[in-house]
Amino acid sequence: MNDLARRMIRVGIALTSTRDLDRLLDIILAEARALTGADAGSIYLARENRLWFCISHNQTLFSRHGEEETGKLFREFDIPMDGDSIAGYCAAHKKALNLADVYDIPADFPFRFNRYWDRANNYRSKSMLAAPMLNTAGEVVGVVQLINAKDKKGDTISFSRDMEEVLTSFASEAAVAIENARLTEQLRDAHLETVFRLGVAAEYRDKETANHIRRVCEYSRIVGERSGLDQEGLEVLYWAAAMHDVGKLGVPDAILHKPDALTSEERRVMQYHTLIGAKILEGAGCDLLQAAQVVALTHHERFDGTGYPQGIRGEEIPLFGRIVALADVFDALSSRRVYKAAFPEEKVLCILKEESGAHFDPRLVDNFLQAYELAREVQDRYPDREEDLNKFKNLEQLTPGEIKINCPACAR
Amino acid sequence: MNDLARRMIRVGIALTSTRDLDRLLDIILAEARALTGADAGSIYLARENRLWFCISHNQTLFSRHGEEETGKLFREFDIPMDGDSIAGYCAAHKKALNLADVYDIPADFPFRFNRYWDRANNYRSKSMLAAPMLNTAGEVVGVVQLINAKDKKGDTISFSRDMEEVLTSFASEAAVAIENARLTEQLRDAHLETVFRLGVAAEYRDKETANHIRRVCEYSRIVGERSGLDQEGLEVLYWAAAMHDVGKLGVPDAILHKPDALTSEERRVMQYHTLIGAKILEGAGCDLLQAAQVVALTHHERFDGTGYPQGIRGEEIPLFGRIVALADVFDALSSRRVYKAAFPEEKVLCILKEESGAHFDPRLVDNFLQAYELAREVQDRYPDREEDLNKFKNLEQLTPGEIKINCPACAR
Repeated sequence: MNDLARRMIRVGIALTSTRDLDRLLDIILAEARALTGADAGSIYLARENRLWFCISHNQTLFSRHGEEETGKLFREFDIPMDGDSIAGYCAAHKKALNLADVYDIPADFPFRFNRYWDRANNYRSKSMLAAPMLNTAGEVVGVVQLINAKDKKGDTISFSRDMEEVLTSFASEAAVAIENARLTEQLRDAHLETVFRLGVAAEYRDKETANHIRRVCEYSRIVGERSGLDQEGLEVLYWAAAMHDVGKLGVPDAILHKPDALTSEERRVMQYHTLIGAKILEGAGCDLLQAAQVVALTHHERFDGTGYPQGIRGEEIPLFGRIVALADVFDALSSRRVYKAAFPEEKVLCILKEESGAHFDPRLVDNFLQAYELAREVQDRYPDREEDLNKFKNLEQLTPGEIKINCPACAR
Repeated sequence: MNDLARRMIRVGIALTSTRDLDRLLDIILAEARALTGADAGSIYLARENRLWFCISHNQTLFSRHGEEETGKLFREFDIPMDGDSIAGYCAAHKKALNLADVYDIPADFPFRFNRYWDRANNYRSKSMLAAPMLNTAGEVVGVVQLINAKDKKGDTISFSRDMEEVLTSFASEAAVAIENARLTEQLRDAHLETVFRLGVAAEYRDKETANHIRRVCEYSRIVGERSGLDQEGLEVLYWAAAMHDVGKLGVPDAILHKPDALTSEERRVMQYHTLIGAKILEGAGCDLLQAAQVVALTHHERFDGTGYPQGIRGEEIPLFGRIVALADVFDALSSRRVYKAAFPEEKVLCILKEESGAHFDPRLVDNFLQAYELAREVQDRYPDREEDLNKFKNLEQLTPGEIKINCPACAR
């Protein structure tokens, strides 16, 4: 087995196993440069018939300024997918371009090289190799553009025909990896969006708002970050928290919307929302919904064992339930509701401390208070607006014309 | 650029662009055989510390019986990941095995070859090369096992050291592709499960059941299949249909649960569920929720323009809305509800025909009636059970002990 084949397998593994798009582009550009011995390079991605500059490497400038400072020399821009630029030509014609000197492009070629960046940064771009990244359907996903091939002494040379072939093949593999990463990203976003809407839908019947849910998710993450959860656990917690009150779907209006204090029988029915939520989410196949079930069931338990529905105590209560209990109550205290004004901050903090060890896990209260600045930022970022509190009133006046519709599936 | 490197890139593209697991395993096995010149081979996938036989190729038997008949000669089985079998040894020790003749394994080796299949199918397994498929964390994803390398004349030879290296590298790339396909599958399942639960949650307050939603999805697909939708469109339609009544979340109990006929004012409020649904799903980023919004808004429009909320007519009504309108009404007529018995089949069919061109798109009614046998199968597969109709009564007696909890995230 030869070196290039071995390397191609290694590169294939790196591309296939990277699902974060930014990281993937970085790997693609680094490998493209390594395969061809290029000093510098850039990647453009195609969107809406334009090419968007995404990432650039420049070894000479890395050595001169460091990677971080060099990064600041590049600004985002986009160019049309036409023949006026090298990358645009490459995309429009779906073919690689191999130029010996970009300062000496024959006059009858349609494109020109823009020397502006070179001048501003005291760099001399000379040889250039650009290849379109084509997916399996032959569509342009983007362009990878390499600058200044180097020989072993470090002198700039032209890119060989062989390098052209290597880059062309590699660019297609990169295109498929990019599409894969995007697909995963889209699927993930679609799922999380649906999870969030399920949470919002449940609160819809209550006096709560979408921003209440968003804040509870954020507070939960703040506490979780300081309570030893890893990135994956935090992600699951964040979205599971959005569904904590999903069981309110099963609570009768007469109780949910009652303006006065509840009778003890009504309170008992209201408390059923924890069990109903757990029932709605029962038997889920995915981690996220399983965690959401636990949160729905246990977010009204109290650390001292006097909560509901099970009356479990201390660390018998799952960590996620203890965290969301704190986040949910903190938000109820610190924000305005239809039936109450927001409590002043000192009163809220006083209650949290009083309830530490009683309602709440004292360790979690400490963790939250240490990061309290972050909670303030969340309040500023997701305030309750007047119209959110009156959503039912607004609905009564809703007309179809006010609803934005956007359905690609129906357009087929 | 050499042939092997070029080939490795091509293989990388094939692996990365295939997201269906069965198809992927087929490609992996075909490529592994082509790379090493093997006559036959199998892939095992690891699950719960066992290896599960997944796929087998055998060129000699393909030639003798054809691919389809050969497929019938293999039966599913699983083996422990230990040293007793060749694949098990390979997985347990995470290293490749290259055997010149499996009928002549040295007596001090821990594993034996089982000749049973060979005898039953008149085949002689001789040389064998097996490699573990290791992911980037070094975990065993499965084993690929190749049999009988062939020289140019078609004689069986041993696998070379070079082939061993090629297969080992390739197997790692295959492992990552398999994990990728599984991840995509899991994400997709999780998303669709959440979509369905959002639909079920909404019906929770109404007199409907989860199986009502399932049936409406199925009927919609039956109609959609005959109405020119492609596979992707059908998939979107199926899941969007699950959310058609999501707006019922916003309808007051007093109206939703009223046993008597609604007054005209109550009916007006009830009809708001189409607008509320569209509002809940407004501004979604993914195709599926966007399509669901259109379905929520338009599934009570009528082909003759006398429906609500917009009173649009004919093909002004989006196709998905017209399809779900038919599916939803058909299910309401043909199944039992708390307030009515199921209508006899002839009466249901009579109503559909009467309403063709009035309530329903006549072309869709025709398409549905042509495939009516499929609708009957759906009714048998998803019947309404007594306990589903009484779910609120059951909830009132719910205790935490009856709810199944399963939270991997909390176990950390």
